[in-house]
Amino acid sequence: MSDKRRTEIAELGEFGLIDLLTKDATKSNKSTLRGVGDDCAVVAAGRDDALVISTDVMLEGVDFDLTYFPLKHLGYKAVTVGVSDVLAMNARPEQIMLSLGVSSKMSVEALQDLYEGVNFACKELGVDLVGGDTSASMTGLVINITTIGRAKRKVLTYRSGAQFNDLICVTGALGGAYMGLNLLEREKRVLRDVQNPEPQFKGYEYLLQSYLKPRARKDIIDALAEDGIVPTSMIDISDGLASEVLQLCKASQCGARIYLDRIPIAQQTNNLADELHRDPVVAALNGGEDYELLFTVPLAMQEKVMRMGMVDVIGHITRPTAGAYLVTPDGSDIELKAQGFKR
Amino acid sequence: MSDKRRTEIAELGEFGLIDLLTKDATKSNKSTLRGVGDDCAVVAAGRDDALVISTDVMLEGVDFDLTYFPLKHLGYKAVTVGVSDVLAMNARPEQIMLSLGVSSKMSVEALQDLYEGVNFACKELGVDLVGGDTSASMTGLVINITTIGRAKRKVLTYRSGAQFNDLICVTGALGGAYMGLNLLEREKRVLRDVQNPEPQFKGYEYLLQSYLKPRARKDIIDALAEDGIVPTSMIDISDGLASEVLQLCKASQCGARIYLDRIPIAQQTNNLADELHRDPVVAALNGGEDYELLFTVPLAMQEKVMRMGMVDVIGHITRPTAGAYLVTPDGSDIELKAQGFKR
Repeated sequence: MSDKRRTEIAELGEFGLIDLLTKDATKSNKSTLRGVGDDCAVVAAGRDDALVISTDVMLEGVDFDLTYFPLKHLGYKAVTVGVSDVLAMNARPEQIMLSLGVSSKMSVEALQDLYEGVNFACKELGVDLVGGDTSASMTGLVINITTIGRAKRKVLTYRSGAQFNDLICVTGALGGAYMGLNLLEREKRVLRDVQNPEPQFKGYEYLLQSYLKPRARKDIIDALAEDGIVPTSMIDISDGLASEVLQLCKASQCGARIYLDRIPIAQQTNNLADELHRDPVVAALNGGEDYELLFTVPLAMQEKVMRMGMVDVIGHITRPTAGAYLVTPDGSDIELKAQGFKR
Repeated sequence: MSDKRRTEIAELGEFGLIDLLTKDATKSNKSTLRGVGDDCAVVAAGRDDALVISTDVMLEGVDFDLTYFPLKHLGYKAVTVGVSDVLAMNARPEQIMLSLGVSSKMSVEALQDLYEGVNFACKELGVDLVGGDTSASMTGLVINITTIGRAKRKVLTYRSGAQFNDLICVTGALGGAYMGLNLLEREKRVLRDVQNPEPQFKGYEYLLQSYLKPRARKDIIDALAEDGIVPTSMIDISDGLASEVLQLCKASQCGARIYLDRIPIAQQTNNLADELHRDPVVAALNGGEDYELLFTVPLAMQEKVMRMGMVDVIGHITRPTAGAYLVTPDGSDIELKAQGFKR
């Protein structure tokens, strides 16, 4: 063993690792319409339709901390995480499957809380819970969510379709989930040795909601369909705006310019960032877990998109040689770098 | 919190727990053909076809021990575990997705070994690796495998279709994986403090193969199709024969009689059981992880099934009131009880 080279995962990063590991993946079935490299895999279903399928793993101690994450919210969020991938394909979520690794410390009642959140999110989104697997865990709680959606093939939206001069659009506000996490971590630290802790969240309810109970943006997919808009490309914002813009650029082989003062940031995000001496723009760019949608449309659709009233245009697609940049109000360019906040 | 009742998971068992947690699951999409309660969920795909989807979680320290489980074999086995669920629906596996939780202790080269096993199994089975997710893990390795298969709706085989007087058939030999695990655990114990351990496996190669590198029985699904046999019910043997017979009986609302001396057990299983003073029949009934198929066919198909040459008839289906029994050679009846060996 000792003469073998050992490469640390950190040297490659998550995306480099996935590229390396999946480079030999075969594609031998004609039903496989799209494999590794998008929010979902795409599988043929009848002549005009396709199923999109995603899988997401969430681990205690890494993706959530049960000392402040209510299990009901965690169940809800797991569904959001899965469904968000399906929405990013411009598809409708229809089924989910839940795999759990459960330590014996956990009571049946605690698991019922988790499922209550899952069922609540499923009802809200019109999704059916159709199966799963349960194993004992020697360590923490493990959640894997498989999500299945459906779309007409002709409206499926990939990461790879962005074109020169397309507008870059984003839903909701960014950075809120990351600031919510920061708030929860601060209160945990401060109240570590307090007997009956009373955490101070007043004025920051939106941030807690953004982190603990984010909503999947099915309303956006519905609105796009209603207005007859098919984005040229789309991705969900799970790792932060910077990372997602770079993923779009890589898949579409293009560059991008994002205007800093157009990035939507909520007042509570600004307030807490101020209190904690943080930069709210960094939270939006690198925080992640917002589960909003990032998509591109042709320039000619500008008015139509603006009329939706739920979308901000934050930049545009450029030539691949132009790179991906953040443009500050004083006109200087900062190269976008992906960081994400997977600890 | 203190006034809330606390129920231990052990009080309900895995199947009782799943029943409780999924009782409120909605079924609101007409594309959901079958939800919780079979080897796979079933989703409509065109007018005549269906997709079957399963999800399986495997956790280090519970489902595998990396001190003796080579990562290449583990990757191979993960595919077997997933594909076996698809085969149990009488469907053809076409795609898999792999979610990993990886500790930073693990090198890129180790993960490449894991993927080499995954890719090898995929090629053997004609399956495409189409995606996944990777997260950091603070503890051990976490593997979740999502498997997607396809079948004409009219040949899909559920657990619930067994009829009175049907024959109960099983593929391969049972109990080998469990005895392989016992062998590996013994050598680990014996060689704990030895500097350059040389474990003794001679004469037990089949048992090691059964546990470390079990083959998914796609050959059986092919042979059934070739011979025009559609089983009335089917399930894969992951938790031991006893547990699977009881699952079939529960889903089909029937009883069963299994003849002890008809249960196929390999010579090496008998040999090691003898050496370890264990009962090989207990290994077959409760050991699990054999990934063979258990299915039922109408009595009239007896000759056709026997002519396949790869199947043993081990019993028959009875009235629900008759219960599920093991019949010993001396003619006494022992009620079947599920145990499984999830530690």
